[in-house]
Amino acid sequence: MKIRRSDRLVDMTRYLLEHPRALVSLKFFGERYDSAKSSISEDLGIIKRTFQERGTGILETLPGASGGARFIPYMLKEEAESFLQRVVDEVNDESRLLPGGYVYLSDLLSRPDVLRQVGRLIATQYLNQEVDAVMTVATKGIPIAQSVATFLNVPFVIVRNDSHITEGSTVSVNYVSGSSTRIEKMELSRRSLKRGANVLVVDDFMKGGGTLNGMKSLINEFEAHLVGMTVFAEGEFSGNRLVDDFTSLVKVNAVNPNNQTISAEFGNFINTVFGSGMEK
Amino acid sequence: MKIRRSDRLVDMTRYLLEHPRALVSLKFFGERYDSAKSSISEDLGIIKRTFQERGTGILETLPGASGGARFIPYMLKEEAESFLQRVVDEVNDESRLLPGGYVYLSDLLSRPDVLRQVGRLIATQYLNQEVDAVMTVATKGIPIAQSVATFLNVPFVIVRNDSHITEGSTVSVNYVSGSSTRIEKMELSRRSLKRGANVLVVDDFMKGGGTLNGMKSLINEFEAHLVGMTVFAEGEFSGNRLVDDFTSLVKVNAVNPNNQTISAEFGNFINTVFGSGMEK
Repeated sequence: MKIRRSDRLVDMTRYLLEHPRALVSLKFFGERYDSAKSSISEDLGIIKRTFQERGTGILETLPGASGGARFIPYMLKEEAESFLQRVVDEVNDESRLLPGGYVYLSDLLSRPDVLRQVGRLIATQYLNQEVDAVMTVATKGIPIAQSVATFLNVPFVIVRNDSHITEGSTVSVNYVSGSSTRIEKMELSRRSLKRGANVLVVDDFMKGGGTLNGMKSLINEFEAHLVGMTVFAEGEFSGNRLVDDFTSLVKVNAVNPNNQTISAEFGNFINTVFGSGMEK
Repeated sequence: MKIRRSDRLVDMTRYLLEHPRALVSLKFFGERYDSAKSSISEDLGIIKRTFQERGTGILETLPGASGGARFIPYMLKEEAESFLQRVVDEVNDESRLLPGGYVYLSDLLSRPDVLRQVGRLIATQYLNQEVDAVMTVATKGIPIAQSVATFLNVPFVIVRNDSHITEGSTVSVNYVSGSSTRIEKMELSRRSLKRGANVLVVDDFMKGGGTLNGMKSLINEFEAHLVGMTVFAEGEFSGNRLVDDFTSLVKVNAVNPNNQTISAEFGNFINTVFGSGMEK
């Protein structure tokens, strides 16, 4: 049965949103809706225009009989800034202070609306790069890795500090915890990463960069390539960080448990990704 | 600027998909597109029809000036069966066998496409129930909890076996591990769950049910309510399980490391959720 344009637009939008970065052929849509490729092409033009106007993402359209469309989600600078401002405002709340100058962030990173935007943001940073897998360390990096992986449409891999029988054989590295200068060990299932894979590293929080540095070593052990490292929050650290090539969405400064103050601000994300003078 | 119907349909579809279970008012859409409420109502009718025909979910429309729409994702029986059949086929692969009769499943539960369908499926089971939070235990339950929480549009909470300083004060319970009859301890940040909350428990794998039982105790400690328990995979277990009120998507039987065979089949999900005689 031939499907009306309005119905096609609704279903195509859903389909494209659920298959980011995948090339969907005109043929596939044509058969799905029993419609001519020329009609499908027009539909794609409408979706492309709306996605662009609303800042949803790019719809790349490939012309020709063998052509199709590929949806690449992104977030524009304006939306990114207003989202990060809301995060900063939420983090600037003294009730988040924990003993030892730590900050409670688990509520933010367990809300689907926040995670969706964090994932879209980080995917925007790697818009033009090839990524085969997103890597993080258990436990709290996992939700971020999953959200980024959803927008990049690639699997994520979880590095662990404790071995677990259901992972099979693993590769492990020792690393120096930047904050405490202790030697620790992290490991990853051998099956989870292919040689030569392009790996994006994400995590929830960093101070000295020891964990990020450990993941870098692990990527080397797998003979894979590091694409970049992005963390949700960067804490204050006095001393030399073990990594400097990272991006942070927010920065939590001067947590002072004595007078119960906390001060969050933008990390280097906006400048790194959008540039300071760039308008969009 | 007034927006054309075709453009509205594309953007409304995206908006509704990203805000499951939330009531979006006609007024909101009317202002967003500078369009009359009557036009928006017609748009919603088109989206409702398409979502229903394609098995995407229900679009509840509330009539009247103060009305609006609420998108409730679900999966129909046919799609559920074909998805679970694909999972079963993938699990039936001897290369997944690990020493001790364990099975490697981490690759499946780190693929966004699989997790999306698992989340939609489990959300379908609790379609008509009120859920305030999804609970799981670290590490491997997290991706499932996140996906279910995304479709239910509620936060998820992560129970841990090890204490972590950034969680603040915690509530802990001791529980008997069903498989090994050891006594273990699990804990949850005090801030993460409100008294009286309706909690859905999910996990990746169960054998004796000890972990699920522990989460039940924890829910009692928080004076919250258990809505239900659903696991991705159920393993064989000889002896009495500690819980019997659970649902499993797949069942992994007769893992035999000696002759290297593995046998996966449907869990009790399809019958529990769709009934055996129900067509859709």
